[in-house]
Amino acid sequence: MKQALAEAKKAQSKGEIPIGAVVVCQNQIIARSGNQTEALNDVTAHAEMLAITAAANALGGKYLTECTLYVTVEPCLMCAGALSWAQIGRIVYGASDEKRGFHTFASNALHPKTVVESGIMEDECAELMTRFFQNKRSR
Amino acid sequence: MKQALAEAKKAQSKGEIPIGAVVVCQNQIIARSGNQTEALNDVTAHAEMLAITAAANALGGKYLTECTLYVTVEPCLMCAGALSWAQIGRIVYGASDEKRGFHTFASNALHPKTVVESGIMEDECAELMTRFFQNKRSR
Repeated sequence: MKQALAEAKKAQSKGEIPIGAVVVCQNQIIARSGNQTEALNDVTAHAEMLAITAAANALGGKYLTECTLYVTVEPCLMCAGALSWAQIGRIVYGASDEKRGFHTFASNALHPKTVVESGIMEDECAELMTRFFQNKRSR
Repeated sequence: MKQALAEAKKAQSKGEIPIGAVVVCQNQIIARSGNQTEALNDVTAHAEMLAITAAANALGGKYLTECTLYVTVEPCLMCAGALSWAQIGRIVYGASDEKRGFHTFASNALHPKTVVESGIMEDECAELMTRFFQNKRSR
């Protein structure tokens, strides 16, 4: 999660919403990304989506059944849908997102075999987001 | 929808699940894509996702509020989530997908302002899918 937070901070330094993700397979990081919706001018360029694509590329296969995704914020519906298609083995997220997180819309969005853990380094992950939007609003 | 069907058939000819999408803005097609999950080895490469990215690129802006997406099959949760972020103005789809379509998981997945129409050229769109999976199974 520390690595995912580093990606989030890198994203923030480029003016992006500070969310980061890494994919781990057999104790190795095989993909990492920060949110890039501004840089790519593309709503689909969430950290998780970019990390899924990069992980599939690294593995040479579409399915991530043996992988864990660490992400600083609860995935949205789009990312949860993508993680479901990828049949990801495990998702670990930091801060919850009651407004856009997938739990708010569809608690069964993920593949039934996917294990989910939440609240890891929650304060650090949430604080990055809170501070980012406070700064935006005060401008 | 005829153009979306043409994209679906093109996808099928390349061994992809036959789904196609086009994005129309001010009576002009600004993006078109077929499903490319096999070619790109990437679960996120659905026709709708690729069309959203291409449309944003064509417009030079992330939001597709003035656009209509025509897609041969009801969008899945991932694509519905992406269409929500894009705040697409209107979605027209052909065949319903009771197994993976977004309605099965979250009827409120889309942006509240998005207008949805379904059942346009439904038979042609559904038949492509049915025949594709029948052929797959009989191999």
